[in-house]
Amino acid sequence: MKDVIICIGRQYGSGGRFIGKLLAEKLNIPCYDKELLVEASNKSNINATVIEANDEAANSVVYSVFQNGMPINQQVFLAQFDAIREIANKGPCVIIGRCADYVLEDRDNVVSIFITAPIENRIKRAVEFYNLDTNKAIKAIKKVDKKRKDYYNYYTNRKWGDASNYDLTLNSKIGVDKCVDVICKYVESL
Amino acid sequence: MKDVIICIGRQYGSGGRFIGKLLAEKLNIPCYDKELLVEASNKSNINATVIEANDEAANSVVYSVFQNGMPINQQVFLAQFDAIREIANKGPCVIIGRCADYVLEDRDNVVSIFITAPIENRIKRAVEFYNLDTNKAIKAIKKVDKKRKDYYNYYTNRKWGDASNYDLTLNSKIGVDKCVDVICKYVESL
Repeated sequence: MKDVIICIGRQYGSGGRFIGKLLAEKLNIPCYDKELLVEASNKSNINATVIEANDEAANSVVYSVFQNGMPINQQVFLAQFDAIREIANKGPCVIIGRCADYVLEDRDNVVSIFITAPIENRIKRAVEFYNLDTNKAIKAIKKVDKKRKDYYNYYTNRKWGDASNYDLTLNSKIGVDKCVDVICKYVESL
Repeated sequence: MKDVIICIGRQYGSGGRFIGKLLAEKLNIPCYDKELLVEASNKSNINATVIEANDEAANSVVYSVFQNGMPINQQVFLAQFDAIREIANKGPCVIIGRCADYVLEDRDNVVSIFITAPIENRIKRAVEFYNLDTNKAIKAIKKVDKKRKDYYNYYTNRKWGDASNYDLTLNSKIGVDKCVDVICKYVESL
């Protein structure tokens, strides 16, 4: 598919973000993860720190309300919404999380993917890559997944992680490289 | 993967059963759909008609209880459970629905897949292949999906259609042949 935009949702610790990075490298296209926050900050009047604090959060961690009466988390969502649309206009890319599949649902060149993994692999990954002990890894998995799920379900009319939302979902237990290969095969087939 | 057993769950009208048949043909291995009912009947003392009436049904459509006190739908589940395990012992195959992914979860050679499709495609497929008018197709989609979901969620500790249960899920909007190609690529990569 020409000018494909690949949106990747992911369970915490599934390796979804890393798969997105590898995929972008293989396809020689940019990958937007935290980079989206900078874009959203540049395009809005919202400070980058505030955007990061409210990233993928349905409930604002800052309870102040802006002058126009809109809660900060909604403003952050809208800033990211605009940034995602602008990025998608630039050309093919990979976008990690932030409801990008929903934001871009009307476009024909979008492939939406969700990455899962067995709980034991996710714990191992969180311990290895985020320097957490096992108990903290388990807590982080529950907390971050809930945050992502709440954010997705709040801002979309869909259920986070439900197969029917996505073009393709993969369990990363086969390894990140194989996931990239299968996704490439899928994209090539379009 | 050697001796792979591919279990395919599917939304009604998604083409999942057809994808399973094509996949089995391509891999030159048997495909079990309704054939499972015959196997289950042969291996149990339950009449094939009773098995078919209770196929993928969490709640018995026949309210009589057998002498051993077990509801008929549970007896049918157990008969299918045994049939699935026996079929899996024979060699590589494709098995459609009937919680086969759960029944065989302890085996290393099992790939679990779920097929979805956009609602408009499912209606079109039900009209075309099952000779239903549009309204009846919509009703059938709701009814059969609910039945399959209830059956799966009742007999397993999982949620039907939740990406985290499966190795791979695919939206068949790309076409059944492309789905078969992507699944083959996945299986080859193992």
